[in-house]
Parts: sequence; structure tokens; C-alpha cells
Amino acid sequence: MADYTFYTNPMSRGQIVRWALHEAGADYEQQIVEYGPTEGKPAAFIAANPMGKVPTLVHHHGDHDHVVTEAAAICHYLAEMHPDTGLLPEAHEKARYFRYLFFAAGPVEQAIIANSMGWSVDPQKEGSLGFGSYERMVDAFEAMLTGRAYVCGDHFTMADVYVGSQVDWGLAFGTLPQRDAFAAYAERLRTREAYIAAKKIDNDLIAQREGADA
Amino acid sequence: MADYTFYTNPMSRGQIVRWALHEAGADYEQQIVEYGPTEGKPAAFIAANPMGKVPTLVHHHGDHDHVVTEAAAICHYLAEMHPDTGLLPEAHEKARYFRYLFFAAGPVEQAIIANSMGWSVDPQKEGSLGFGSYERMVDAFEAMLTGRAYVCGDHFTMADVYVGSQVDWGLAFGTLPQRDAFAAYAERLRTREAYIAAKKIDNDLIAQREGADA
Repeated sequence: MADYTFYTNPMSRGQIVRWALHEAGADYEQQIVEYGPTEGKPAAFIAANPMGKVPTLVHHHGDHDHVVTEAAAICHYLAEMHPDTGLLPEAHEKARYFRYLFFAAGPVEQAIIANSMGWSVDPQKEGSLGFGSYERMVDAFEAMLTGRAYVCGDHFTMADVYVGSQVDWGLAFGTLPQRDAFAAYAERLRTREAYIAAKKIDNDLIAQREGADA
Repeated sequence: MADYTFYTNPMSRGQIVRWALHEAGADYEQQIVEYGPTEGKPAAFIAANPMGKVPTLVHHHGDHDHVVTEAAAICHYLAEMHPDTGLLPEAHEKARYFRYLFFAAGPVEQAIIANSMGWSVDPQKEGSLGFGSYERMVDAFEAMLTGRAYVCGDHFTMADVYVGSQVDWGLAFGTLPQRDAFAAYAERLRTREAYIAAKKIDNDLIAQREGADA
């Protein structure tokens, strides 16, 4: 049995986790979960994650399993389980690492979703929103990258897999504006061996489905 | 100079971070930031966090500073900086610790905000939302607590400060439904010495303002 069971769908945020699995050099087995009602999904998957959401990672650890959900949490968990890969932050990098991991999982995600769903924010209520406004989020996100190759400076860490995926997807789907700092960062990430290997698997799965549908 | 400068407002998510500071036994100095336009805020604060959001923590570390934003990130950072307090997860607790820290900072926060802002979710688009639906989030959140005193079981960790604050606030403001598992969890948290000490400071600050306004 592989160390990890990875429940995913090639069209989902599971792409982020697959990239993380490849960066960590993890031994995993994939289980593709189709979109649709919870009732049609594998029982072991629903037992692991009652939300019925992919990606979900099950870590087979001796005689028991550990379940991790939430793409950012899975990325960080893999970095913790594979410390020799250098994906964890150094002591002096921890502030930026955790700050931007949670910034991307919280305010960035919320602002992009609100913007793409067409939800309008009453300016009187902006203060109660974690993300403030879409425009301020984008500016702060760009400022994060200014003068730095990666979240923690020159050192690529697991935070870049998650934060970088937000940028990569944001540019690809038009949910983030095309800015030079975003484009340069995404280009750096797209040349990584683990990124290329992981994307090829998901893109091949997507192409097979499109072939089957044709 | 104290080890940390803590930018906060007593009416904000800064209450979560103050509780975390007290759990960690951290030496901090507070700077109250009023709500309003960025231009009126302290320059050192805006330099640290261009979003102009509280809570923001500045860690004075030798000859340089580390800045942490995002309440969940600050909580975890403090646990990392004060390992002797036992607020970090044990090895076998890491999966739940990070899973629920990100669950509370992501899906829970998003679902509560969407619900309280009156944003409706097109069921066709639910799959693209990290939180699925408010109802499924609430059920998954309740399931997390079933049979456990804390996020990681019997061991109170820093995850409980952040996750627990979502429950505590959710019950207080009616943004989460009154369920027995939520109420029992919140009661356990409210008896903690650090919780009581931290809340007293913020509540006294709020009362002073109300007195000044009267």
C-alpha cells in the first residue's frame, strides 16, 4: 500500500495537492472522485471527509490513518512529513511562510470568489470582511512579491506551491489581473520539475475524458 | 522594548490574537488602531501591513522585525515561537491541527461571511466554492467536535484558540446555530485563565470607549 491515498478530481484544487505530492516526493495512490451528490461517492472518502470535497489526503501511518483536508493544510502537512525536501521554512522565514499561506487561503480566496460570483460588498461592511476589498487584496498580494523570487525570498518553500497556485490559476482564469510581478512569479514556478510532472498527469486525465466524451 | 508590538482594535479579530498572546505568555505592547481610512493610521503599522488590517503582529527579533498578519497565522506563529507552552501539536496531532486551522480560516470564515452578507450561492457553482454550502460547513464543523474536547482530542493546542474563537463568536453573534457540541466546546474555552485575562482587557477598552461616548 502506498503511504498516502489521494482523493482528487483532475479539474479541481487537487492539482495543487498533486504538485505538493511531487515536490515532497511522496508515495501516493490516487482515487478519482467524480463531482456529484455525496451518495454516489466512495464510502471511504466520505468517511474521511464528510464534506465530500476533493482534495482529501489520507496518510496511512502504521496501524492508523491521518486525514487532512483543505489544500493549504495538505501542502503544509506534506512539508512537515518530508522535512528532508527543504520545503519547510527556516526559522527566520516562518513569519512570511505562515502569513502568506493563510493570506492566500483566506483573503485571496475569499476576494476572488466574491469577485467571480459577482457578490458586491457594502463599503460600510468592508471592515468586517477579512479581505477588505478585491483591489486592496490584489495590491497587497503584488507587494508580497516585490523584490522577491518566492514567498520566503530566494528559498522556494511549500508556501509557494499553494500561494503560487493561486497566482498561476488567477492568471490562467482571469481572476487576478495580469501584472508583471504575478507573471514573473508564475513563470518561475512553471519550470519546476514537480510542477511539470504533476500537471502532465492531470492534463492527461482531462484529455482522456474529453476524448471519451467526443 | 517588548518582544512583540500588537496592532489591534478591541472590537476586532484582534481579540483572538490577544488570547493567543496570553496563552503563549508573550511579552507584548499594544497599539490601538482606529477604524477608518488608511491615511489616518500609524505609518509603522501601514509599513508592516499595507492592507491596513488589524490584528497585525510585529516580532522584534534581534536587529530586525518579523511581521505576521492573518489571525490564524499569528496564532500558529506564536505557538512556534513559544514551544515550551505545549500549544503546538504532537506529531500524531498535526493532521487534525492543520486541517482544522485551515478549515476554520477558510471554509468556515467564507460560509459565515457569505451567509451574514446575504450572498446567495448558485447551486451549479457550489462545486467551485471552497466551502460548499453553509449547511454542510456547519455539519462538518460539528462532526469535528464529536467525541473530542479539543481540536486534537484531549490536548488543548493553539488551533483551539483560532477554531474555538470561530465557535465562541459564532454563538455570541448568531452566525453559527446553537448546537450542543458548539456550546460545550465554547464553555470549556471560556474557563481558561488566558481567555479570561485577554477578554477582560478588550472588554475594559470597549467599556472605556462607551463611557467616553456617553
